[in-house]
Amino acid sequence: MEIKANERIDELEYKGLKIIQDENGFCFGIDSILLSNFAKEIKANSEVLDLGTGTGILSILLSEKTKLKKIYGIEVQSEVAEMAKRSVVMNNLEQKVEIINENIKNLANIFEKNKFDAIVTNPPYKELNSGIINENKKKLISRHEISASLVDFIKVSFDMLKDKGSLYMVHRPERLVDILYELRKNKLEPKNIQFVHSSIGKEPKLILIKAVKNAKRFLKIEKPLYIYNKDGSYTKEILKIYNKKDV
Amino acid sequence: MEIKANERIDELEYKGLKIIQDENGFCFGIDSILLSNFAKEIKANSEVLDLGTGTGILSILLSEKTKLKKIYGIEVQSEVAEMAKRSVVMNNLEQKVEIINENIKNLANIFEKNKFDAIVTNPPYKELNSGIINENKKKLISRHEISASLVDFIKVSFDMLKDKGSLYMVHRPERLVDILYELRKNKLEPKNIQFVHSSIGKEPKLILIKAVKNAKRFLKIEKPLYIYNKDGSYTKEILKIYNKKDV
Repeated sequence: MEIKANERIDELEYKGLKIIQDENGFCFGIDSILLSNFAKEIKANSEVLDLGTGTGILSILLSEKTKLKKIYGIEVQSEVAEMAKRSVVMNNLEQKVEIINENIKNLANIFEKNKFDAIVTNPPYKELNSGIINENKKKLISRHEISASLVDFIKVSFDMLKDKGSLYMVHRPERLVDILYELRKNKLEPKNIQFVHSSIGKEPKLILIKAVKNAKRFLKIEKPLYIYNKDGSYTKEILKIYNKKDV
Repeated sequence: MEIKANERIDELEYKGLKIIQDENGFCFGIDSILLSNFAKEIKANSEVLDLGTGTGILSILLSEKTKLKKIYGIEVQSEVAEMAKRSVVMNNLEQKVEIINENIKNLANIFEKNKFDAIVTNPPYKELNSGIINENKKKLISRHEISASLVDFIKVSFDMLKDKGSLYMVHRPERLVDILYELRKNKLEPKNIQFVHSSIGKEPKLILIKAVKNAKRFLKIEKPLYIYNKDGSYTKEILKIYNKKDV
């Protein structure tokens, strides 16, 4: 497999999967790995959307971690989408994973509404007007709500999910109110939240949220997930997610 | 101090404070203690409301833990309010604590709006239509949203707080979406949340929330609070809140 200058191939350490990443772009992090684990309950034969797929990591991981029928990874940046397509080919996943270069706001032009069993998304974390923006354009669009806002991601999810279909999202704790407010307002009822802490006693760094379209109200906050032990090693839970044994 | 049959006097283990409790009614728990600690930043000379004061514990503790000017404890149940009044007298706090027997929904008849610097509340946790209701009436009203709902507590808080005044609430994690949604909807912006876990690795049992009237959006999730160590003893944080040294 040929790769471009500034690109590298990384092992996903799961069933031999690999991914092409642009070293000047947004590289995947533990958030995608954790979200793929959080969403691994997705049922056999599901049709799934991955909104803002970036490198394609979530689509590629979920195509192996679940028995889904097909996952469509939507990516607004053409160069990034093209790179993700090459990662799909490299992993021989063309039958199960399709990368589409499109803004998520235009999905109604491509798919029928109420079509999908599940949606996964690792959206940009930062509001457009927040923080200092001095990154290159690729990172900018991946990190900031430039092409689509949190509300867009939620509205599109409602439109595209079947009744009782599930949305799985990873995001930052400081956006918790925004997320829960907009989910409920848009009839995607938050059902499960898991907070991810770098270690015991620390503030959460990430949140994993499952919401169900048109569901009844009842929230379950899961046991927290800690990434590191006090000695800096990975916790058993994380090693299990990475498919490694505790050593 | 005379007490009635079925009543007992408990030490609050803070500056000699005591409280009268009805053994057949709703007795205070760690939630009130933790909320009094969470709200101890209330500024000197503040006028404060305690919505649904029950035994009066929150009003009594905050009158000593802060330099507030006056705190009004509102209690809908006349017998419970009468008992709380006797606790205020027993602690010689009549200058700082006033118990008012009224439904919180009627407060606009008693106070001017936009009057209070801070509000604290440990409201009923359960929705009216949830769970099996087979308790006596006193516990019922203390635990279930019979006299006033969560939305009532939030709407009254907005009406009674000054601009930028703070609401401090303790509640259950399963109501997190309801709380955050209604707070934002009613212009009480959630600013701080702390999750309380019985011990490390367990699901949260309680949530402490601070919201500020007409504030900008920005949420901080605090470090989690653990109540027990693995050996069943209280953690250092809890001993500190209880004003005891680690032994």
